[in-house]
Amino acid sequence: MSQATAVPGAFAQLLLPELREILARSPGELDDATSEIHPADLAELVAALKPREQRTFLTALPPARSADVLEHLDDTTRKKLLIALDDRTAASILNAAAADDRADMLAKLPPSRAATILSVLARAVREETAGLLAYPPNTAGGRMTTEFVALPEKTRVDQALALVRRAAREKEALHTLYLTGAANEIIGVVSMQALLAADDRATLIDVADKSFQSVPPLADQEEVATLISKYDLLAMPVVDVQRRLLGIVTVDDVVDVVVEEATEDVQRLGGVSPIEEGYFQAGFWSLVRKRGLWLLVIFVGELLTGTVLRRFEDEFRGTLSLVFFIPLILSSGGNSGSQSATLVTRGLAVGDVRLADFARIFGREVVMGLTLGAFLGAVGFVRAMMWHTGAGVSAVVGMTLAGVVMAGSIVGALLPLGFKRLGVDPAFASSPFVASLVDVVGIVLYVLIAKAVLGV
Amino acid sequence: MSQATAVPGAFAQLLLPELREILARSPGELDDATSEIHPADLAELVAALKPREQRTFLTALPPARSADVLEHLDDTTRKKLLIALDDRTAASILNAAAADDRADMLAKLPPSRAATILSVLARAVREETAGLLAYPPNTAGGRMTTEFVALPEKTRVDQALALVRRAAREKEALHTLYLTGAANEIIGVVSMQALLAADDRATLIDVADKSFQSVPPLADQEEVATLISKYDLLAMPVVDVQRRLLGIVTVDDVVDVVVEEATEDVQRLGGVSPIEEGYFQAGFWSLVRKRGLWLLVIFVGELLTGTVLRRFEDEFRGTLSLVFFIPLILSSGGNSGSQSATLVTRGLAVGDVRLADFARIFGREVVMGLTLGAFLGAVGFVRAMMWHTGAGVSAVVGMTLAGVVMAGSIVGALLPLGFKRLGVDPAFASSPFVASLVDVVGIVLYVLIAKAVLGV
Repeated sequence: MSQATAVPGAFAQLLLPELREILARSPGELDDATSEIHPADLAELVAALKPREQRTFLTALPPARSADVLEHLDDTTRKKLLIALDDRTAASILNAAAADDRADMLAKLPPSRAATILSVLARAVREETAGLLAYPPNTAGGRMTTEFVALPEKTRVDQALALVRRAAREKEALHTLYLTGAANEIIGVVSMQALLAADDRATLIDVADKSFQSVPPLADQEEVATLISKYDLLAMPVVDVQRRLLGIVTVDDVVDVVVEEATEDVQRLGGVSPIEEGYFQAGFWSLVRKRGLWLLVIFVGELLTGTVLRRFEDEFRGTLSLVFFIPLILSSGGNSGSQSATLVTRGLAVGDVRLADFARIFGREVVMGLTLGAFLGAVGFVRAMMWHTGAGVSAVVGMTLAGVVMAGSIVGALLPLGFKRLGVDPAFASSPFVASLVDVVGIVLYVLIAKAVLGV
Repeated sequence: MSQATAVPGAFAQLLLPELREILARSPGELDDATSEIHPADLAELVAALKPREQRTFLTALPPARSADVLEHLDDTTRKKLLIALDDRTAASILNAAAADDRADMLAKLPPSRAATILSVLARAVREETAGLLAYPPNTAGGRMTTEFVALPEKTRVDQALALVRRAAREKEALHTLYLTGAANEIIGVVSMQALLAADDRATLIDVADKSFQSVPPLADQEEVATLISKYDLLAMPVVDVQRRLLGIVTVDDVVDVVVEEATEDVQRLGGVSPIEEGYFQAGFWSLVRKRGLWLLVIFVGELLTGTVLRRFEDEFRGTLSLVFFIPLILSSGGNSGSQSATLVTRGLAVGDVRLADFARIFGREVVMGLTLGAFLGAVGFVRAMMWHTGAGVSAVVGMTLAGVVMAGSIVGALLPLGFKRLGVDPAFASSPFVASLVDVVGIVLYVLIAKAVLGV
């Protein structure tokens, strides 16, 4: 699809033999031979190598280049490599990494290994890294980098520009300048565009945005992502209670956060506890636990449905044709519920729907449930008549379908709202969970309507 | 959570009376009164106004400011406003909007209204906009902006910098310069950082990245987002077959794309055809259609399950206790299937899993299904024994559970792969869809095992 790259997999396959040759024969030539390849592509090549070759690869490249490659590797391969590399090589690579990437990589290592590598790092780097490691990984503090340029508010534009040009030769990326006041507190931000557009003799504070956004270090990463996206920012400053600048969260991290959070939602809604690794990287037994747990929860719920069925054994014995419609009734209610749960959960995630909208959602789902229920009930009645189960059973099936679709709609919409209210992730209202709740309602409704209509 | 903004809703509520006052009394003061408010926040305020006030608001602000506010409004409110505003006002606001935003807004209007506004625009703007409108909205061409700076390759760094500073006063955002050769083809990109870091007397081509990424205008937006995220880019050039630069897709659009695509996946997996609007904006009947269609598809599937049940009527009549376990068996299979489908679908979406991994996925799901099946089968057997249904029925329940969980695991994993193979969105393998497929398998398995074990 891209004109500059072939399919990444195929691309890696093509270069692999050549790369192996260089690694075996003259690793010293590796840097020159791969200098035109983007670190993201190099990482794909490295992932295809044997562990021993991977170590040779990372040792042969200059540390800054190895750090770039390491950052683009998947978590599992990176972790294995940082454990297998000797302390000095691992430390020199991490030393060359961006501060936030370094902290992220160390946070995913076993604590003893992270401590060993930390102890070999230069003191200033070690202290900076330990500071970042102190924040939970899913917060602004855990995501931020400490590489930013802060200048006194009185700096002149031409001085700032000269400074920025010096800094550009060393730092990773510079999109924004931060202005600090007397007590080192942040008082304004100057985008690179504002700096470039400004007159040389102006003072930074005159061209600064003083009503900028900022977040505390413990702000949730998802909230930071929402703000960056809402205000179209390139970076979000993270400040302490004295409003001193601790670091910045950049927009490229936001894309990762958004993808991660969406994956978490999708998996919860599908009835799997979120897995952080990719499909193949996730450990077999950890996945068995995460899936088994949910299956067991739903299992217990369905036992309840079974108990209800058992309680009405005589009714079903009398009119066995009622049994044929059980799967239809259960799944219609469950599906309607999973649809509503999906819509409301995603609405909450993207900010379309709020807890305060409770009454509006309830009203909408009742009407929606009635409409869909009437429709499916009518179809069900006709189909049952065609099976010659008699007008009585057909009427029971139609009425139950209408009721259970409405019940599903309401339960499915309210469950995520209830979870949110309790401070639980609304995505726990997964399709299987909603379905098993609605199943019990469906069976009880079925039997009650059958008793009333057929007098069984 | 942010220290600079209060909760957006509350924030809007606070300013609303004041804003209404200004609109009623002296709209001329509106610009000054709101100049410190970010357009994203202003848009929230506008959304809370009455339609007539909204029109006064947009007419009173300078067109460029109104364009910013309009861009942050939700699709439904924006559409209504652009229809209700008089032609000249609408055109002057759109004239001031960024090229890509202008095209996006017009694309969502009824064609006749879009044509009217287009006809009032200045000729150059009209032609540029018509060019952008020619690309489908979900492609690179549909997402790109035509506002970029392209320079001849021989330009000197200090000249480029002077030019960039002039351009910064007018253009929206400048992160990257594009270098063009003799035939106007793109031959390199220079990031702002590379430009700032470069020596004044260097030539741009010397500091340019010549192995940059680019995409054709019909590339899918999701693939563009993946590339921008993978290579940590701020913008992706869109080029024609002669490699002439048509426009650029910027990183802030990528965040929107990622959120949109995730929402689409979540909704499909939940058994709802994707809705583009928010929960409350979506039309009632359009939602009824989108939900009703899926309910009907699943309904037909479950009728099949009912037919199978009916075929084995005598078996169930003989051993009625088998009926109590039907919900348990159906839902266990369905849940296991929806878990696998979720994991594989999301894996495909984020690029963890590829079609070529078919055999590996199959093997993994068989083993996973066996493990989970053995576990649930054992629990089911014990529970059935406790209900005193006899060792025979209990064994049938246990064995069926084991089989159906494994079947669910396999069907759930293979269905999205099959869809992908057929060029259909894998997310169509929704939980309800997988569940109803597995239901039929489960009932058949149940009866066959019952016949074999109990001889019914």
